[in-house]
Amino acid sequence: MTIDAALLARFAEIVGERHALSAADEIAPYEEEPRGLFRGKTPMVLRPGSVDEVSAILKLASETGTAIVPQGGNTGLVGGQMPDGEGNEIVLSLSRLNRIREIDLQSNTATVDAGVVLQVLQDAAAEKDRLFPLSLGSQGSCQVGGNLSSNAGGVGALAYGTARDLCLGVEVVLPTGEVFDDLRKLKKDNTGYDLKNLFVGGEGTLGVITAAVVKLFPMPKGRELAWAALPTPADALRFFELANDRAGNGLTAFELIERTPLAFTLAHVPGSVDPLAEAHPWYVMIEISSGRSGDDAKELMEEVLTVAFEEGLVVDAAIAQNEGQANAFRHLRESMSEAQKPEGGSIKHDISVPVAAIPEFIERAGEEAQKVAPGCRVVCFGHMGDGNLHYNISQPKDGDRDTYLALYRKMNDAIHAIVRDLGGSFSAEHGIGRMKRDELIATQPAVATELMRRVKAAFDPAGIMNPRKVI
Amino acid sequence: MTIDAALLARFAEIVGERHALSAADEIAPYEEEPRGLFRGKTPMVLRPGSVDEVSAILKLASETGTAIVPQGGNTGLVGGQMPDGEGNEIVLSLSRLNRIREIDLQSNTATVDAGVVLQVLQDAAAEKDRLFPLSLGSQGSCQVGGNLSSNAGGVGALAYGTARDLCLGVEVVLPTGEVFDDLRKLKKDNTGYDLKNLFVGGEGTLGVITAAVVKLFPMPKGRELAWAALPTPADALRFFELANDRAGNGLTAFELIERTPLAFTLAHVPGSVDPLAEAHPWYVMIEISSGRSGDDAKELMEEVLTVAFEEGLVVDAAIAQNEGQANAFRHLRESMSEAQKPEGGSIKHDISVPVAAIPEFIERAGEEAQKVAPGCRVVCFGHMGDGNLHYNISQPKDGDRDTYLALYRKMNDAIHAIVRDLGGSFSAEHGIGRMKRDELIATQPAVATELMRRVKAAFDPAGIMNPRKVI
Repeated sequence: MTIDAALLARFAEIVGERHALSAADEIAPYEEEPRGLFRGKTPMVLRPGSVDEVSAILKLASETGTAIVPQGGNTGLVGGQMPDGEGNEIVLSLSRLNRIREIDLQSNTATVDAGVVLQVLQDAAAEKDRLFPLSLGSQGSCQVGGNLSSNAGGVGALAYGTARDLCLGVEVVLPTGEVFDDLRKLKKDNTGYDLKNLFVGGEGTLGVITAAVVKLFPMPKGRELAWAALPTPADALRFFELANDRAGNGLTAFELIERTPLAFTLAHVPGSVDPLAEAHPWYVMIEISSGRSGDDAKELMEEVLTVAFEEGLVVDAAIAQNEGQANAFRHLRESMSEAQKPEGGSIKHDISVPVAAIPEFIERAGEEAQKVAPGCRVVCFGHMGDGNLHYNISQPKDGDRDTYLALYRKMNDAIHAIVRDLGGSFSAEHGIGRMKRDELIATQPAVATELMRRVKAAFDPAGIMNPRKVI
Repeated sequence: MTIDAALLARFAEIVGERHALSAADEIAPYEEEPRGLFRGKTPMVLRPGSVDEVSAILKLASETGTAIVPQGGNTGLVGGQMPDGEGNEIVLSLSRLNRIREIDLQSNTATVDAGVVLQVLQDAAAEKDRLFPLSLGSQGSCQVGGNLSSNAGGVGALAYGTARDLCLGVEVVLPTGEVFDDLRKLKKDNTGYDLKNLFVGGEGTLGVITAAVVKLFPMPKGRELAWAALPTPADALRFFELANDRAGNGLTAFELIERTPLAFTLAHVPGSVDPLAEAHPWYVMIEISSGRSGDDAKELMEEVLTVAFEEGLVVDAAIAQNEGQANAFRHLRESMSEAQKPEGGSIKHDISVPVAAIPEFIERAGEEAQKVAPGCRVVCFGHMGDGNLHYNISQPKDGDRDTYLALYRKMNDAIHAIVRDLGGSFSAEHGIGRMKRDELIATQPAVATELMRRVKAAFDPAGIMNPRKVI
C-alpha cells in the first residue's frame, strides 16, 4: 500500500513534529547503512521518546497496515534495519530511548533502554567496576536494542556468550501496540515458553525491543593479551584445546588470523606494527583474564604459551607488555575488515562450523575459492573458539573489481555448501535480514521454514513488522 | 474422545507388541510419579525404539486426535509427565532411545538420544576427561530429554548454566510426525528464529525432543568444597559477591542453607554429621573449581574464606579434606528434601528473585508464613547464586498434618505474592506442568498468556501434545 500524507500526519502527531523527520537531508542517514551496501526509501523517520509512543505508533501501524522498520545504530550488516525501495515503510528509530534505567551491583544486572549505545553501557558498567562483555567493532554507535535483536556476538562471546546469553529480560512492544513487560533480573525462570528468545535474534520482525535487563560481570583484575604465531590451523585447534583446558572460562578471547589480513592491515592502516619480527602463516590473538590479580593472569598466560611452545604448536609469541601494546594488538584485529578495502573487491562470509572442523573448512574452502576465482586472496580471521570465521576473499591482485564481484553469489554458494556439509551455519553472527533471506529459505529444511512462518504469523498476523526480513 | 481398541492396536503395531504396554502392572510405574503426588491413567504406554517410530506415533496421533504425553525418567516435580485421570492419553516413553550417538572431544560436545540417563552421560563424559555439568538429585534416573524439556537447573547451573544453556542443538518430532533436525554443534548460529528454545523448556507440549547436542567442558583439575557458617542471609549475599568477584566462573556452587534443614538431616539421615562443631543459623556450601590444579583451587578457596572471615561474614568453616568428606557435605545438601518427610507435612516453593533481594525475601516470607500457619518451620535452602531457593515450610512440630496441608494454596499465594513483588518467579527450576498451570494463567500478564497460546496453536494446532500442561 501507498502511505498518504494524512496518515503520515497521524504518525507524526504521536511523537511530535520535531521527532518526525521527513526532509530529505534529515532522513538520508536512515536510508543507507554506513558501508553503502544497503539502501532504502522511507517517507518518514519516527523518533519516539517513550515506550508509550512506540506503542501508539505500532497500534496505528497495525490498524492501517503500515509497515514499520525498527532501526538502532544502523550498523547491521545484512540490511535488517533498512526500509525497502518502495518508500512506504516507516523507519522507527530507537535512538531517543537512551536511558540506563538501573545498574544493580548486587544482582549484577543493568536495565537499559534499547537506544543506549553499546559503549555507553560498557563505560557505565566499568565506572562501577563491572564488565559488560559484549564488544564489537561498531560499539561506538551500535545500540543495545539492535545488539539484542540481531543476537550480536563479537570477541567476548567465547567466555561470556552472545547477546542472547547476556540478556535476562526484555520489554517488547508487540505489533498491536501491547507491551510485553518481561524485564526480570532472574537467572532461573521456568514459567512457560521462552518468548524472550524469539524477540532476541528476531531482527525486529516480531516486535520492537524497547528495553532489556542484561548481565554484568565482575571486572577482571588482570587481563593478558598475546599474539602467537603458528604453522597451521590444525596447530591452532590444538592450541585452543590446550588453552581451554588450562584457562577454562579465563580464556576470554581466541582469535585466529591468517597472514593475509595482517599483511593488508600493516600495509594500509597507518601506524600499525607487526607484533612479531618475522612473518608467519597463521596467528592467534589470545586473551586470558583473571578474577584474582594481574600476576595471576600473567602466570596463566605464560604457562599456556610455554606448554604450546614445548608441544611445537606455537613457534613465536609476543605478550603485550602494557595496556598501550594490548590496544595496539586489538586494533590490528579490529582493522582487518577495513584494511581489505584498498585491496579491491571482497566477497564476505560469516560462517560457523563445529570448532573441530575449522582446519578442514579452511582447507576445503581455500581450494573451492581458487576454483571459483583463480588468484583470489583468502582473508581468513575470526572467533575460532566459537567456530566462527569471517571468511572473506579479496579479488586477485591485479584483476577487475566488477568481474570479481560478479562471482559473489557463486562464491557464496561454493563456500556455504562446504559449511552445510560440515554441519555449520552460513550466518553465525550477522543474522539474516534482507541479505540472506532467500538463501535461508532455499537451503534450510522446509520444516524449519514452515515453523518460522508460523511463529511470524502468530506474533505479527498483519505482517507490519520489518516485512520480508528473515522470513 | 475415548480411545478404542482398534486405534490402540494401530499404535501398538508401530512399536511392536512387546513395546506397547497395556497390562495394569506394566503401566502402573508410568501412571504415578515416585513421590506419589501426581497420578494419571493411560490405556497404553508406547516405548518406541527409533525416531521413525516416534514420528509414526505422532503422525497417527495427529490424524486421530489422540493425546500424547511424553515421559522420560518420570522424575518431574510438577506433573508434566503424567497423563490425566480420564484414561485416554497415551504415554510415550523415550527410555529405549538411549544411545550416546557421539562424543566429540575437539568440539567439546555430546550428541545423545533423549532417553539417555543423566548420570550415564556424566559418566561417559568423565571417562573422556570431560565434564557434563548438569547435576540433579535425580540424576540416576532422570533422562536428558526430560532435563531439556523442563530446562533443568541444579547446583551446577551457577557456573555452567541451566539445561537450556548447555544445549546446542535438538532433534524434535513435531506433532505432525515431521522431524525438525537441528542437531548442530554450533556455538553461534543466527539463521532465523530461535526455535530450539521453544522445545527446550516446552515440557513436551510443542513436540517431542528425541535427541540433542549438549556442551561438554574440560574436567576441572581441582575442586574444593567448604561448609561455612554465617550469621544472616545478608552476610551470605556479601559472601557471594566476594566469592563471585574473586573466583568468577571458578565459583561452581554456592548453596544457602538454613539451620533447620541441616538439623532435620542430622536427625533423620543415618550417618550424617554436622560439618562444624557448633550450630549456626545459616550456612553456605561453596565449591571452587580450577582448570589449573588442585592446589590452585585450594589457594583460591582459602583466599576467599580468609577475606570473608576478616570481614566478619563467615564465622566458622570446614574445608573438605578429601573426596569422601566432600561427598559427605554434598550428601547433606542432597538429603534435605527427603529429611523433611519425618517432620510431617511440607508446603513447597521453588522460587527465584534477583540475587540482591534474597535477604529481603527470606525476611518477608518468614513473617508471612507465620501469619498463615503459626508455629510452622521454615526449611530454606537452595541455589543462592542463582537467586533460587527451595523455600519449603514444614508443619508446626506437634500439629495435625491434614490441617496444615489444607493451607497449601493459601501459603503458596502468600509466598508467591512476595516473589511477584520482588520481580521474581514462582517456578525457577521445576516448570509449570499440570501443577502450576492455573496459577501461571491467573498471575502472569494477559499478553504473555496470549502469546503462549499462539505459540502452542502454531506448533500443535490439533492440541495432541501433552494437553493442559503449561498452557
